[in-house]
Amino acid sequence: MHRRSFARTLAGALGAVALAPAVDGTARAARAAHALALRGSARQALGVDAARLNATLAELARFGANPQGGVSRTAYSDADLAGRAYVRGLMERAGLAVRVDAAGNLLGRRPGTGAGLAPILVGSHIDSVPEGGNYDGTLGTLGAIEVARTLGERRVALRHPLEVVVWQNEEGGLIGSRVAAGELPARELERVAVSGHTIRAGIARIGGDVARLDTARRTPDSLACYLELHIEQGGTLERERLPIGVVEGIVGIWQWTVTVDGFANHAGTTPMDRRRDALLAAARFVEMVHRVVRAEPGRQVGTVGQIRAEPGAPNVIPGRVTMSLELRDLDAAKVRRLFAAIEREAGAIGEASGTTFAFAVLTDHGPALCDPAMQQLVADSARALGLASRTLPSGAGHDAQEMARLAPTAMIFVPSAGGISHSPKEFTAPEDCANGANVLLHAVLAADRRGGRAGAPRP
Amino acid sequence: MHRRSFARTLAGALGAVALAPAVDGTARAARAAHALALRGSARQALGVDAARLNATLAELARFGANPQGGVSRTAYSDADLAGRAYVRGLMERAGLAVRVDAAGNLLGRRPGTGAGLAPILVGSHIDSVPEGGNYDGTLGTLGAIEVARTLGERRVALRHPLEVVVWQNEEGGLIGSRVAAGELPARELERVAVSGHTIRAGIARIGGDVARLDTARRTPDSLACYLELHIEQGGTLERERLPIGVVEGIVGIWQWTVTVDGFANHAGTTPMDRRRDALLAAARFVEMVHRVVRAEPGRQVGTVGQIRAEPGAPNVIPGRVTMSLELRDLDAAKVRRLFAAIEREAGAIGEASGTTFAFAVLTDHGPALCDPAMQQLVADSARALGLASRTLPSGAGHDAQEMARLAPTAMIFVPSAGGISHSPKEFTAPEDCANGANVLLHAVLAADRRGGRAGAPRP
Repeated sequence: MHRRSFARTLAGALGAVALAPAVDGTARAARAAHALALRGSARQALGVDAARLNATLAELARFGANPQGGVSRTAYSDADLAGRAYVRGLMERAGLAVRVDAAGNLLGRRPGTGAGLAPILVGSHIDSVPEGGNYDGTLGTLGAIEVARTLGERRVALRHPLEVVVWQNEEGGLIGSRVAAGELPARELERVAVSGHTIRAGIARIGGDVARLDTARRTPDSLACYLELHIEQGGTLERERLPIGVVEGIVGIWQWTVTVDGFANHAGTTPMDRRRDALLAAARFVEMVHRVVRAEPGRQVGTVGQIRAEPGAPNVIPGRVTMSLELRDLDAAKVRRLFAAIEREAGAIGEASGTTFAFAVLTDHGPALCDPAMQQLVADSARALGLASRTLPSGAGHDAQEMARLAPTAMIFVPSAGGISHSPKEFTAPEDCANGANVLLHAVLAADRRGGRAGAPRP
Repeated sequence: MHRRSFARTLAGALGAVALAPAVDGTARAARAAHALALRGSARQALGVDAARLNATLAELARFGANPQGGVSRTAYSDADLAGRAYVRGLMERAGLAVRVDAAGNLLGRRPGTGAGLAPILVGSHIDSVPEGGNYDGTLGTLGAIEVARTLGERRVALRHPLEVVVWQNEEGGLIGSRVAAGELPARELERVAVSGHTIRAGIARIGGDVARLDTARRTPDSLACYLELHIEQGGTLERERLPIGVVEGIVGIWQWTVTVDGFANHAGTTPMDRRRDALLAAARFVEMVHRVVRAEPGRQVGTVGQIRAEPGAPNVIPGRVTMSLELRDLDAAKVRRLFAAIEREAGAIGEASGTTFAFAVLTDHGPALCDPAMQQLVADSARALGLASRTLPSGAGHDAQEMARLAPTAMIFVPSAGGISHSPKEFTAPEDCANGANVLLHAVLAADRRGGRAGAPRP
């Protein structure tokens, strides 16, 4: 769809619910009018209950609360079970028909008025990393429930069913959403999660049924679209003082195990010019990765996060070093180019230092791009609410990347204080939380007007 | 003592035993004559039994033999006990009066003819590192026994008593020699050795008596001098095709724990220019240490052998890195200067990368210099035997460094193939082993002539 006419359609969609239809005029004038109206009356007329949203965030933070002020609510732990029970109660109070699918995902459904339309799916997760924070996943989950509750209270009928989902075990590898996308290999069921339970046992603990996992699988035509609100987990929005981020896509993640082989020898008796020091070569590699990744413009990142030197004694020259290398970007071709440069330069480092480099692929997840029309819809919803936004990639993985395989997908980001996440220091201001939920609400409304996959105008 | 007259004295000393006294002439002519004579008749007249020495080396290698062809004869292990029993038998067959001191050191004594003279002490150790080789320590031990046996068989009387020592647990921190030097703190008795026994229990296992440890202590006037034959454990002699090394001293060893603090953050969401990556700073540190240590001439070495990044996941920017730093040299002032430069440059790396560096001293062992006259005596003995030599530092620690606190000390090095030690690949050619033992034999003879600490001409 052309950008201007799409925007007019969106403005119309918003207006149809909350306001008198926009009078004729330019799209720009219509947008301005709606934005003004929303900033005024829509806060009451069609906005989430910001206080209630933030109160539920605080309440959920009690489950698995840790002394540092965050939560340790790892998947399948007692805290996770208690948190899910609390959230299930919220979903029921929002008037949703709640069920647990065979994968253990928690789903709450609100019917639509249209015949045979696939549901709009909104949600996130409530499990955390160990020593995690109070916003990652929970904002998107409670924001989605708040949207459903608001629609119910305001008696706003949607054509599409609205389905709220709480994906299980996002932090442990997007388990729930990967089952839904048909992407979880059976062997992963035996993997032990951080809570100490295998995925298999964990699914049973949260009310799933491993024997019927395929019933939890979603097909492309079973979804109109997917929307997820999330904290940015980076510092871009905060630095640029922008309340809303429109996610272009979730970056691809490529990981390698890098092995450097030199020659272990006595640190006292081996002169400096006779050494084949694997750690010296590894140090040059770390520095080089940093240089190569920064050498071209863009938001690509490269990280060496793990390192081990063997034999690993103060008085022995390391003979072998093992490292991780991770590259992320939205553009797989760029990552291939960067890795080729890294591999080439590693060869030169090896030659100069009497060592050899070997690379073994550990992870190879391609990027997941958000649907351009859905991105536009989020951007326009923000603009209509008077909230400035920018597009940006998600450097972190999300359940949305699995849904992007099936349906037009969008993500809404709100600022993270200091860019910090996966930490008790994680913080998003109450107003930012409410802004995000309001953009989610209006994006749902616009998506409903726009129609789902079947018959909707597509760009 | 002036160099030329000392050499003449040495030549006289050697001649008095094995040859007709040198006729008048220049020192040079005398040396040449003796060298020729030794290369010819002295091999029979006054040389060790090379075949027997190498046979005992092979036999000792059976105790703790490992599949790679080396030994794992860590102190206090069953293999160590069996090896000690074998060596004790050799000492007895060499006519020595054998005892175990309270520290568990094995001592074999041969009386001297002089009244009230302190013994000349010779020896080394037979314990090994795990996965060690067949020459480190054992050559010096069996070489010393072979010297004593040769003197006995040839009925060569020495003025000084000759004492052969097998120091216990050299590889685990010079335990036996440190007790002898009064340098072992009581708390170290509780330390667990590689074999799994505490030092305390280990001493009991090998026949020592922890309650009487002070009886194992040697005083300066209880020793005429100390001599130790050892493999080089470096590649200098092999590269320069020299059969004998005269050790100038045992380098000092300084070790620090280096902690780099940055900020752990999400590797996907933190842009490259917003990172405080402790591992990137650590990499620059490793490279810088190498550069600073090599920036001035000399044989100083600097090593980073251990490294750990926290939290240590491929997808997390390291927030903290802990490393070891080791510097070694014969010159403590040079090491202080190098460390000051390293500390200064680390500060600059920290400033440029948003990290901080902290250094904690782990080890601070000053260098132990060999006695110049004793060095000369070894060099002259080698020359008299027609063996080329050079002086060099010992980059590795040895029991000799403890004895250097008490008595004039010298060490004799022989080549290590490939400079390799602490490895099953450790190898010293049979001829090199015999050369070393012959230099030890003649150095003992010269030291006996020269006199001990009391009344000997000192430089």
